[in-house]
Amino acid sequence: MAFPRPKPTTMETLAMERANPPFNIRKMSIAMHGSEKALILKEKFMAEIARHPAFKLSDIHDLSKDELRERTMEKFASMVYFVTNESLETFQLRMQLIGIADPSFWTRFGVAYGLFLGALRSGATPNQLSYWIDRGVLGLNGVIGCFAMTELAHGSNVAGLETTATFDRGSDEFVIHTPHLGATKWWIGGAASTATHAAVFAQMIVDGKRHGVKTFVTQLRDTKTFTLMPGVTIGDIGKKMGRDGIDNGYIQFTYVRVPRAHMLMKHTQVSRDGVVTEPPLAQLTYGALLGGRTSMVTDSSNSAKKALTVAVRYAAVRRQFATGKNELETQLLDYPIHQRRLMPLVAQAIAIGFTGLRLQVMYEDMTQALDTMEPSDPNLNDILDKLKETHATSAGLKAFCTWACLDTIDKCRQSCGGHGYSAYSNFPLMYADFAVQCTWEGDNTILSLQAGRSLVGAWGAAVRGKKLAPGVAYLNDSSLLSAKSDSSLSLSDIQRAWNCVAFNVIKKAAEEYVRLLKSGKTKDEAMEKCSQSRFIAAKIHTIGYIFRLFREAVEEMKDDEESRTLKTVAKLYGLWQIEEQQGYFLKYGYLDAQQMDKVQESVDALCQEVRGVAIPLIDSFALSDHIINSPLGRWDGSVYESYFAQVQAANPLPKEHPYFTRLIKPLLERQNEDMEDPGSAMGLDDELKEIEEERKGE
Amino acid sequence: MAFPRPKPTTMETLAMERANPPFNIRKMSIAMHGSEKALILKEKFMAEIARHPAFKLSDIHDLSKDELRERTMEKFASMVYFVTNESLETFQLRMQLIGIADPSFWTRFGVAYGLFLGALRSGATPNQLSYWIDRGVLGLNGVIGCFAMTELAHGSNVAGLETTATFDRGSDEFVIHTPHLGATKWWIGGAASTATHAAVFAQMIVDGKRHGVKTFVTQLRDTKTFTLMPGVTIGDIGKKMGRDGIDNGYIQFTYVRVPRAHMLMKHTQVSRDGVVTEPPLAQLTYGALLGGRTSMVTDSSNSAKKALTVAVRYAAVRRQFATGKNELETQLLDYPIHQRRLMPLVAQAIAIGFTGLRLQVMYEDMTQALDTMEPSDPNLNDILDKLKETHATSAGLKAFCTWACLDTIDKCRQSCGGHGYSAYSNFPLMYADFAVQCTWEGDNTILSLQAGRSLVGAWGAAVRGKKLAPGVAYLNDSSLLSAKSDSSLSLSDIQRAWNCVAFNVIKKAAEEYVRLLKSGKTKDEAMEKCSQSRFIAAKIHTIGYIFRLFREAVEEMKDDEESRTLKTVAKLYGLWQIEEQQGYFLKYGYLDAQQMDKVQESVDALCQEVRGVAIPLIDSFALSDHIINSPLGRWDGSVYESYFAQVQAANPLPKEHPYFTRLIKPLLERQNEDMEDPGSAMGLDDELKEIEEERKGE
Repeated sequence: MAFPRPKPTTMETLAMERANPPFNIRKMSIAMHGSEKALILKEKFMAEIARHPAFKLSDIHDLSKDELRERTMEKFASMVYFVTNESLETFQLRMQLIGIADPSFWTRFGVAYGLFLGALRSGATPNQLSYWIDRGVLGLNGVIGCFAMTELAHGSNVAGLETTATFDRGSDEFVIHTPHLGATKWWIGGAASTATHAAVFAQMIVDGKRHGVKTFVTQLRDTKTFTLMPGVTIGDIGKKMGRDGIDNGYIQFTYVRVPRAHMLMKHTQVSRDGVVTEPPLAQLTYGALLGGRTSMVTDSSNSAKKALTVAVRYAAVRRQFATGKNELETQLLDYPIHQRRLMPLVAQAIAIGFTGLRLQVMYEDMTQALDTMEPSDPNLNDILDKLKETHATSAGLKAFCTWACLDTIDKCRQSCGGHGYSAYSNFPLMYADFAVQCTWEGDNTILSLQAGRSLVGAWGAAVRGKKLAPGVAYLNDSSLLSAKSDSSLSLSDIQRAWNCVAFNVIKKAAEEYVRLLKSGKTKDEAMEKCSQSRFIAAKIHTIGYIFRLFREAVEEMKDDEESRTLKTVAKLYGLWQIEEQQGYFLKYGYLDAQQMDKVQESVDALCQEVRGVAIPLIDSFALSDHIINSPLGRWDGSVYESYFAQVQAANPLPKEHPYFTRLIKPLLERQNEDMEDPGSAMGLDDELKEIEEERKGE
Repeated sequence: MAFPRPKPTTMETLAMERANPPFNIRKMSIAMHGSEKALILKEKFMAEIARHPAFKLSDIHDLSKDELRERTMEKFASMVYFVTNESLETFQLRMQLIGIADPSFWTRFGVAYGLFLGALRSGATPNQLSYWIDRGVLGLNGVIGCFAMTELAHGSNVAGLETTATFDRGSDEFVIHTPHLGATKWWIGGAASTATHAAVFAQMIVDGKRHGVKTFVTQLRDTKTFTLMPGVTIGDIGKKMGRDGIDNGYIQFTYVRVPRAHMLMKHTQVSRDGVVTEPPLAQLTYGALLGGRTSMVTDSSNSAKKALTVAVRYAAVRRQFATGKNELETQLLDYPIHQRRLMPLVAQAIAIGFTGLRLQVMYEDMTQALDTMEPSDPNLNDILDKLKETHATSAGLKAFCTWACLDTIDKCRQSCGGHGYSAYSNFPLMYADFAVQCTWEGDNTILSLQAGRSLVGAWGAAVRGKKLAPGVAYLNDSSLLSAKSDSSLSLSDIQRAWNCVAFNVIKKAAEEYVRLLKSGKTKDEAMEKCSQSRFIAAKIHTIGYIFRLFREAVEEMKDDEESRTLKTVAKLYGLWQIEEQQGYFLKYGYLDAQQMDKVQESVDALCQEVRGVAIPLIDSFALSDHIINSPLGRWDGSVYESYFAQVQAANPLPKEHPYFTRLIKPLLERQNEDMEDPGSAMGLDDELKEIEEERKGE
């Protein structure tokens, strides 16, 4: 039976939304991707994986964990060609894209290439590094690595890890050992069924003395047979919230011996005689962490854009309730409250995207500057200050951007009503896969407090008259503390608003800290005690920072339709966030109650304005139907047809009902139980009477 | 190898937390459960299901969808005995408890008993009802029902449903038909593989005229063979975010005939001649909806308590980082920021719990009053007003309590760090199962707007001098509008704060609405336009309402250790929410900036105070290890041991690696590809030279 389609069809509705875009979608898309080259590469990667059988996504919701694991390994194997034949820059863009399509795969691959290889690069001596490269660590021919840091009872506190590596001078070996259950290596991606070697973080003990946590490359499995090496116990840690394509495992070492040369010795050295030489200066790891955090900011934007592509397209084609005398029901996207639900999130995803692009450039500039600079360069301290500041800010960015993205995914799901709860909408998987980003690479709350601690320090430096790095330079301008809005709610007014309020909340945290110190607390105690204020300082500073980077990016663009639209988006982001955090803007007097009402009105109006270009804006995100993997977000608007087809394909009816005979039939055929008294059911009393009369007759 | 345990063990730590509770846990628990009887029954139900094989929970994370479905049907079958042999009150308490253990089962059962049976009770004539009872609808012996309302393209807008039921006078039948794909019945719980009959909501057409949506009991399957009835097409809609134990399906009807008598005719009647009689008054459905919402408020509290039991116990035993010179690392629960993360959520879960208890009593009182009252009773209008008001408030309560619970589950997950991401922590399933509560029975945003609409109406009535029902009575006291804090931050000061601010935000929404009306908008347009303000009004009113009900409950208790602790909890709830919504309290001047700083300090101090009794308080929630189903929340504190044992049991290692030979071996044995020029690899140039020389020689 061919069903008739109600008019206008969902396809026609979406086409109408695209009829007269007020800006050039291609140009907008290039702006969002940083360059035309990046966009073209992305389109190439999307086309490639859409055709690769290992990257099939439509059936992913109905695969078992074991099937997912195997499918993920297929992707892994298919990438080895590119990692050895493509420039690093191109390959990173490829992984960034694939990471949005399949975060499980991204992680499983990243364990070997990002974490294990990264540990070698940052910890091995040049000779050690060539040794491992000769053994095949780049092409995976000989070594597949994993990163064995976290333990069952220790995560954030790396210095507290309890696995031991005891030097045995006699054999010139380290003995790796798991002393108790809590010291079991846990969450180790790749350990359960992929890795041959691990970078094991363990407390080094030489001659009974503890020297802190060092890294030891330890073989886990025989490379020919894949059997476990003696003393190595490995188990699978099983089902997770998401990313089930990763084979996370646990590892217990029972007196496992590794050659001394397998300890990574770029920083700390242990000689043949057991002499330990510590590095003269603590390792400068800012750079490495910064790179990871930058990529998480970008991933937050991209993942949010993926969810929003679905939610906004669906809201354009879904109609519900007719208002007034309209025959046709209203598009969800035309309801002011639905605009309120989605448009600020669109603005936020775009803002975070531009932040990621600029962070990337800053990061590359700084790396290059540090690489080429002589120690005697007079600018060295400035660069180091800037690096330190960006490092601290990046901690806050990682936290608040991943939280924003997770929140966006869930709000998008809810905005699609019941269908958002279907696995095939892809929201459940997006949420489950993304959720871990708020926890790993530093728990978001802890990272926020680190950012807050650094802001407290920056405030102190400013008070002492120091000129601060650009990200916190506003702390040098104390006139900001009592600044007031000029009521324009322009981009520069909004920027001042954030600077003013960030300054005030940082000052509050810092003064609290100083007060606690004066009352006799230790530095650590005082920092803990003022943690709520530090957290708030980090939050406000970070939002203001995102707004600044976005605004700067947009203001640097030439004045055209694209940049004018983006200015509207920037304004929406800045004002909506002021509304969200309105308490601080009122408390510190930057805005008064009437102005705050005006902010609400402006946000309403801006939501409506952005709604007008919502579909072209979403199209500029340039995410293919394959990547989005949700019939609700189909580019052509054929939402119900695609959804129905996918549900049917994924759920063929079984030939026979699996449990009708065992469980349902007995219910249906069950006799009505009369809930009568067993006595009367048996006719007991009549029977007793009969017996009595019989007895009488006897 | 027996692992040594670090001292104090996690078990010892938890025992220490329980050493000297400042209140009687049993008494506290009775207060939270409303009565000793309710607590004893709950303990009985928990003991029963902990021993019932169908209610095994520890393996639930690793079951496939099909296995979950079958397991859920086993539970279903095991309950039929109780539903026919237990008092309604007892059975409801049983289901309330089981709903926390397994929401999937709760829903699958509720479809037959709550929705299908409920549709009959509210829509069938007495004769129709006895007919269906005779057919076995109570004992499921003959009829297993499902509730076919939602369609693929229509959810919230029930009046817009597109399935048709056309009266055929000739045969005295209705013809049920699905006219196009969007009208496919969708999400129908029980349809895919359980139900024999459905209550189908369809547009009734008699003599070409549409009479709106009515309900038709339609047979789906033969009760002997379970084959589909002619014209009925059913499919499985497959994987969902959670609740995969429910067999949600889709249904398409192709000219399916049902006797006229199968239309439920309590309200609208259709005679043999096709004469349609509409009811004189629109059906009074407040009561029914109110019951459902009350149970969702209670479920929100219970589900939040379940998550918090895990997170708080884990935070007590997990140690991370040593502060100062301590040998022992600090319990997470001793960090001020961790107290901030969890203690307000504990207070909120308790507040919502007391709200649920009081709502239940109010609901029962009102139902009884309505049942026994004569139409001429002078109090009828008061009761109806109160019913209407409670109904509107319950819409907001459903929305904000389910949101609060979902948020609590995710925050609890994050507070457990990486382990919260393990399926065995049970947070992923709790979240996935609970998430739908924000969508079904009315999307939360839409319900909030309904509550907001009613508040705007109540404001108008107050302005006209009407004495309002208790829940909104504060709108009668306009002196509240400019009230100021007495700086005491006492329970009554907090209550006035909420009343003041709720009044102000309602007034703002109402004035916006009136202004829009005056500018020429229709009522509908004006309501849509002011939806953001309506939403805020609903949010603030609802939080203030929860606070009031909690405060009243606590203030009615006799003055003892339990009530004193609960007063501290109530204060934490009220002040923390003021902090969360601080913008409105500053905007309307109830608190100034200095007082707001004091609020923050008080919340810090109250978090620390509640932390002191956190474990006894959590113990009062009285949730068994079986119900919680998370090793991280074990009552005895044996967190790591239980977690490790569960992970091992759920993930036996396969005898053979499933894909080593196919996917990993080829990588490991792959030769280093020299990325050299193919010409030089072939020695092409030498070869050419040889050829040339040969030619020369010729």
